[in-house]
Amino acid sequence: MSSALATQSGAADRGRSARKRIAILDAARDLFLHKGYAGTSMDDVAARAAVSKQTVYKNFADKQRLFTEVITTDVGRVGAATQARISAMPDSTNVAADLKEFARWHLADVMQPARLRLRRTLIGEAERFPELARTWYASGPEQSVAEFARWFSAWDARRLLRTPDPVLAAQYFNWLVLSIPLNKAMAYATDEPLFTAAELDAYSDEAVRIFLAAYAVPGETG
Amino acid sequence: MSSALATQSGAADRGRSARKRIAILDAARDLFLHKGYAGTSMDDVAARAAVSKQTVYKNFADKQRLFTEVITTDVGRVGAATQARISAMPDSTNVAADLKEFARWHLADVMQPARLRLRRTLIGEAERFPELARTWYASGPEQSVAEFARWFSAWDARRLLRTPDPVLAAQYFNWLVLSIPLNKAMAYATDEPLFTAAELDAYSDEAVRIFLAAYAVPGETG
Repeated sequence: MSSALATQSGAADRGRSARKRIAILDAARDLFLHKGYAGTSMDDVAARAAVSKQTVYKNFADKQRLFTEVITTDVGRVGAATQARISAMPDSTNVAADLKEFARWHLADVMQPARLRLRRTLIGEAERFPELARTWYASGPEQSVAEFARWFSAWDARRLLRTPDPVLAAQYFNWLVLSIPLNKAMAYATDEPLFTAAELDAYSDEAVRIFLAAYAVPGETG
Repeated sequence: MSSALATQSGAADRGRSARKRIAILDAARDLFLHKGYAGTSMDDVAARAAVSKQTVYKNFADKQRLFTEVITTDVGRVGAATQARISAMPDSTNVAADLKEFARWHLADVMQPARLRLRRTLIGEAERFPELARTWYASGPEQSVAEFARWFSAWDARRLLRTPDPVLAAQYFNWLVLSIPLNKAMAYATDEPLFTAAELDAYSDEAVRIFLAAYAVPGETG
């Protein structure tokens, strides 16, 4: 085989491997969401992904590793445009408007039916599989809070907000925006949306108003 | 049998019935929490309560009815002293202090390990047993919010707060107080407390501060 052909064939192998890996993750996500963690076997995953069981094990050492990958892949996938806006937040020149826009996106993102189902599954399995729920919490809510804390720290330094404890402020911000719809959705496992987009926006807007009222720089108004 | 003796024996029967009912509810709560809803049978409940299966069915028509009773009994049990304070809230002469005191109690109450376990179970089973989670949501969070809305409505009328939509304000109040510790506890199913009493009080106090800042009567401070 010429070296050019060998390179082509190597690239084709890598493409095939990547596709198989994605197929396994998709199959696993589907199964975990619908049958729970305990109810899903590596055999089921292999069958649904149409790969051999060996391929599943080659890519993911065991079921817990596979599940962790499903969670972190799901939590981590934020579009490039959103990521750019998030990175620019500390330099915002209009904190109220940018926070309002971000909060609407954040709430809509968390309220996607597949993510709600994952959240219910993880909470329900937290006692039997403590590592999974903790991994999810660390890669989901805690990551978000850490990001928000960076913004509030920057804004406090620029005297746009008064958040002497940025992590604490970030926690209140996160749950102010999410909690009303999210807690209802934990109890109402339905495929039809519980809230319209306009309702979600209204909850999110009021949350931002509350947050800004509580963390405004003293003596400054709106 | 003389009528006095008949009355005594009737009272003894009622006492025995009431004790059996409580024993069944206690056994059912224990089993549901540790084995989940699907994993618990009426036979298990009868065995643990040391009563016949017929007695279980005579008291509770079926498993769902029994579970509903466990939830609502658990949610409803508030001591007389607390109930008196709750009833007096609309007439509060020191809204900030009374709200702070109540919020501390509310958070500590929700964070009890057995209640956290019940909450995780219900969320985890919400897809398979939608009625159960909805019953719990209606008798738990929605009842609390309805109660808080009565206070905020009274306080708005007395111009102590500005809550034109008392139910909306009540929802934010509820989740501001509960969310940070409660969401962490959903992911961390541990029997050791995740937070000290002092930490819970601090979360609750800051939540009340945020709430009052956001819903203060315009032009009034502190």
